[in-house]
Amino acid sequence: MFSTTVSPRFGDMDGLGHINNTVLPIWFETGRNSLFRIFSPDLDLSPDVWHLILVRTEFDFLRQMYYRSDVEIRTFIVKIGNSSFTLGHEAWQEGELKARGQAVLVYYDFKIQKSMPLPNEIRDILKTHIFPAIDTDEMNADSSCSI
Amino acid sequence: MFSTTVSPRFGDMDGLGHINNTVLPIWFETGRNSLFRIFSPDLDLSPDVWHLILVRTEFDFLRQMYYRSDVEIRTFIVKIGNSSFTLGHEAWQEGELKARGQAVLVYYDFKIQKSMPLPNEIRDILKTHIFPAIDTDEMNADSSCSI
Amino acid sequence: MFSTTVSPRFGDMDGLGHINNTVLPIWFETGRNSLFRIFSPDLDLSPDVWHLILVRTEFDFLRQMYYRSDVEIRTFIVKIGNSSFTLGHEAWQEGELKARGQAVLVYYDFKIQKSMPLPNEIRDILKTHIFPAIDTDEMNADSSCSI
Amino acid sequence: MFSTTVSPRFGDMDGLGHINNTVLPIWFETGRNSLFRIFSPDLDLSPDVWHLILVRTEFDFLRQMYYRSDVEIRTFIVKIGNSSFTLGHEAWQEGELKARGQAVLVYYDFKIQKSMPLPNEIRDILKTHIFPAIDTDEMNADSSCSI
Repeated sequence: MFSTTVSPRFGDMDGLGHINNTVLPIWFETGRNSLFRIFSPDLDLSPDVWHLILVRTEFDFLRQMYYRSDVEIRTFIVKIGNSSFTLGHEAWQEGELKARGQAVLVYYDFKIQKSMPLPNEIRDILKTHIFPAIDTDEMNADSSCSI
Repeated sequence: MFSTTVSPRFGDMDGLGHINNTVLPIWFETGRNSLFRIFSPDLDLSPDVWHLILVRTEFDFLRQMYYRSDVEIRTFIVKIGNSSFTLGHEAWQEGELKARGQAVLVYYDFKIQKSMPLPNEIRDILKTHIFPAIDTDEMNADSSCSI
Repeated sequence: MFSTTVSPRFGDMDGLGHINNTVLPIWFETGRNSLFRIFSPDLDLSPDVWHLILVRTEFDFLRQMYYRSDVEIRTFIVKIGNSSFTLGHEAWQEGELKARGQAVLVYYDFKIQKSMPLPNEIRDILKTHIFPAIDTDEMNADSSCSI
Repeated sequence: MFSTTVSPRFGDMDGLGHINNTVLPIWFETGRNSLFRIFSPDLDLSPDVWHLILVRTEFDFLRQMYYRSDVEIRTFIVKIGNSSFTLGHEAWQEGELKARGQAVLVYYDFKIQKSMPLPNEIRDILKTHIFPAIDTDEMNADSSCSI
């Protein structure tokens, strides 16, 4: 599991005085930096090096988040497929899980615009970051009761 | 169905030369303006008037989008529950469906921090915007059902 | 002068219920699309075609802007130098000038990382968009007294 | 002087492979958090407590910034007036000053929509953060020649 801390900024609040929903995709993308370095250690995006494309994201907003305190973003592997893998993301503030989400990324050759199988050496590293802390069935079951 | 057009801006591209994934939540939020006016015609956010909170979003990035041409954002109702409803969002560019998503909103009293049943007169208006163009059963099957 | 209309989105408000200052740079960048097409008609960014780099921006927030109504972004040329030019930007909402700003762009060769003189044919087109409506001395004089 | 570190995220790059200009206003706003706490220690925005409105920002993009490494944001006081003050902002990456800017804030009563004189006790705290490292005349002189 990777952990990074973000400080909400003034404009991350919206007119309801809480963190706007469009901020979470940005924070979760920040949380992917460590994951990206597994694939491209220097974050080099040239097409011979960069082979990741994002195909799906989802976000559950469990409790309102506020401007006043830092947020911990946790990032981990949920599932590894043949040419894709699923990331889990969580946002924790003041000791509570406030939002969680997933992102599906595909190992992709931008030059020929086709997916490729994940190399074994990368697959082995990804496996070490699998984090099944939260049962995903449970995750779906309780999401609507949270507000 | 509501339709609005957005012009991608230079910074909506990312280092891969396509529209970044975090831009779609912003465009789809823009697409919700007309929907919001059903609930608050002047977009007044005072707690006696504004009763909407977003609890879930999801995004499928079907094809890469580019800076060079306008994007049509289509917004419609997918499902109406007791105190919540599900929106469908689509992004069309150069004649192709490039991304789609859903957003679940709850009718909510911010003063007592509790959900409320949707008023019948609003429910009737929402019904006129149901748009089952894409097989929504398939789409719902794996998505949220959680609220 | 170029004109484009933007619809504020929910998250463009901040916790004070007005449009956040960081939104204006985004709206003014959207306003530059038509200007960019003078240099690269298809908005092609390949280094043989794209020759613009931004070196300075400034923003005066004259009056508070709100979520509730559309905003017209006006973009025009203020000054043309040897290898650079200055754009003027204005944001109008509900009949009032709410914010204005400037942006300095340099004609630039990304391959050798050096500025170049503006080609005469481009200079001639830029001249047709000079718009001296507001006295820039006056503009500087009253900038911080406006609220 | 206040210092905070931000990690660029994937989408902060634009199609030219460098950090987009609209990201700096966001990073500099993050840098203002410590300054805001002088006025409202818990970042409480209720109109009896929050008395700051931003009236001007400016940004000089001195050198291109990249996704690959962290950025230090430095924030300090440049000038204190009767009811307003000017902040200086700098972005440092890989040992180089990459961008700098200023922000003018006014001490403001949102209920009566009028500026107020800065209280003496706040003025005294602000004075301890004055940081005249860079000559501002020089700053204006070379601003557009920087690339």
